[in-house]
Amino acid sequence: MATTLHILCTGGTFDKIYGSGAGVRNFTFPEVSAVTEIVAKFHVPNVHVTYDPARAMDSLDMTEADRIFIANWCAQFPAGRCVIIHGTDTMVKTAAAIAERRLDCTVVLTGALQPTRMRDSDAEFNLGGAIIAAQTSTPGVYIVMHGQLFAWNKCQKNPVTGQFEQISPIV
Amino acid sequence: MATTLHILCTGGTFDKIYGSGAGVRNFTFPEVSAVTEIVAKFHVPNVHVTYDPARAMDSLDMTEADRIFIANWCAQFPAGRCVIIHGTDTMVKTAAAIAERRLDCTVVLTGALQPTRMRDSDAEFNLGGAIIAAQTSTPGVYIVMHGQLFAWNKCQKNPVTGQFEQISPIV
Amino acid sequence: MATTLHILCTGGTFDKIYGSGAGVRNFTFPEVSAVTEIVAKFHVPNVHVTYDPARAMDSLDMTEADRIFIANWCAQFPAGRCVIIHGTDTMVKTAAAIAERRLDCTVVLTGALQPTRMRDSDAEFNLGGAIIAAQTSTPGVYIVMHGQLFAWNKCQKNPVTGQFEQISPIV
Amino acid sequence: MATTLHILCTGGTFDKIYGSGAGVRNFTFPEVSAVTEIVAKFHVPNVHVTYDPARAMDSLDMTEADRIFIANWCAQFPAGRCVIIHGTDTMVKTAAAIAERRLDCTVVLTGALQPTRMRDSDAEFNLGGAIIAAQTSTPGVYIVMHGQLFAWNKCQKNPVTGQFEQISPIV
Repeated sequence: MATTLHILCTGGTFDKIYGSGAGVRNFTFPEVSAVTEIVAKFHVPNVHVTYDPARAMDSLDMTEADRIFIANWCAQFPAGRCVIIHGTDTMVKTAAAIAERRLDCTVVLTGALQPTRMRDSDAEFNLGGAIIAAQTSTPGVYIVMHGQLFAWNKCQKNPVTGQFEQISPIV
Repeated sequence: MATTLHILCTGGTFDKIYGSGAGVRNFTFPEVSAVTEIVAKFHVPNVHVTYDPARAMDSLDMTEADRIFIANWCAQFPAGRCVIIHGTDTMVKTAAAIAERRLDCTVVLTGALQPTRMRDSDAEFNLGGAIIAAQTSTPGVYIVMHGQLFAWNKCQKNPVTGQFEQISPIV
Repeated sequence: MATTLHILCTGGTFDKIYGSGAGVRNFTFPEVSAVTEIVAKFHVPNVHVTYDPARAMDSLDMTEADRIFIANWCAQFPAGRCVIIHGTDTMVKTAAAIAERRLDCTVVLTGALQPTRMRDSDAEFNLGGAIIAAQTSTPGVYIVMHGQLFAWNKCQKNPVTGQFEQISPIV
Repeated sequence: MATTLHILCTGGTFDKIYGSGAGVRNFTFPEVSAVTEIVAKFHVPNVHVTYDPARAMDSLDMTEADRIFIANWCAQFPAGRCVIIHGTDTMVKTAAAIAERRLDCTVVLTGALQPTRMRDSDAEFNLGGAIIAAQTSTPGVYIVMHGQLFAWNKCQKNPVTGQFEQISPIV
């Protein structure tokens, strides 16, 4: 039987939509995460998606309390396989907050540089990688971006290009 | 020979993109309008596209000076066939500013409720309609949205649904 | 009130899909035409769509009987506004068969060079134009492709490029 | 530094396009694989793509010679990380032909149920997973489909649904 996968969607660029109605100027978050639609469309088995639109946010707006919420969510799944959809700007910071807890589960964070609903989005590509990494990696905290699996403390979002790159480990 | 079409792109939702780089939170405008790409991809002949990224804006930010600029642009083309890509929130207001000039050209304004770069965008559908309307309508100012050709003074953007609908003419 | 539009979908590249299941090699036609989805998504009012998957076909496979069926369908709507979604290879031939009937309605044929379900499809752009043309043109038979409205007897699909172009009228 | 990835594209639904020109009825293969475009667009580092349009095919048309060609291609990369884009109908058969060679490299086969160029394609999602699996799995032959990593001899394409599912191992 297929491994159970737990996915927490926290918002980020991955899930941003352009609203409808009068006076819309910018991105917002949907009632249902795009992850739910993707796993159904591509027939991924045994996935449990957690998403609360009221807690969806740009990761630049995340507080310490939000990071504690995310780490607590992971702590529910001992020996579990978890994916977290997260904004890219503070993804490493949240990964650090989870890693600090030394949980006995595999946690893979991923996100997108372009929203799922954009034609050229990297969201499906990244999610595809994160879902595999969560099933195949030993317990620990990881980041999947650009077709690469990074240990959480060996990567950064390059502040100029906006892309993730490997760095010497943060001790 | 195919009729010459003049298209002015003023920004609006039609041309919004989600930027790249670190710290991106919201929509911005591209260096080249999506219109240029669409007319090339679909082999539309004899189209001249005018677009200045420095003048691209959300139509809620448009000033009277911007509307004068647009009307002056139309005035360059006596007996011409013009399409204006415009944000939907103040499209009717700009249409009124152009109509006031009683120009001898056909001007069709259109826009989009979802940006061209979104998977479910109405941009190509609306542009397809506006390009036909500009070639087939008598001189005057029109709006094409939702597969409908409206006289500029007989439609409004419904403030609740955000959709264009026919109204009794503004006298 | 918005004009009533009658749309007949006959298949063609516009509506081709790539099937699912084992052993799928090629395109087929869906249970519901993409037109139904497009007009709903973009809130086009007063559209009646006619589509029978059992009659959907590549226009290279169309017979004289199929063309009579299409012309008869148009004949139901005196003074009506009709759009026909049709394969491009024999679109002009069907247009001729309808024109021969000298009906008192406006008929606009359109299609697509890439299926609606392809990312780079011209289907929505062409349909947007055809829907406007059907509402604004005098009775007669027309073709909308590449952002151009052609009289049915003044265009051809270029046998090399596959694109529609204006020609001297067929007498 | 990022691990070097070798990707062989053999055609399959993943790379099918709908051709242009007159008389086009069905799918064909492009001059450049979609994989090249995807890895560039999403900034995947250190990827070497091998694709020959003259050898691109529907996997139902593959011969034993084609399978030997693929296994030989893998054999070039001892201790290497390889992804093979392959039609789904005979993917397991090709996997078996590679596995028989007992090569010392990690080979992950993937494909798509809908072509990359379709709006709802699973191609990017599957490729994202295969690229991660190729970097994280021990030497052997695997299949990535539906967000799952299968040992090559523990899965089959369900002949009715067309989806991959786990089975008891083929001894």
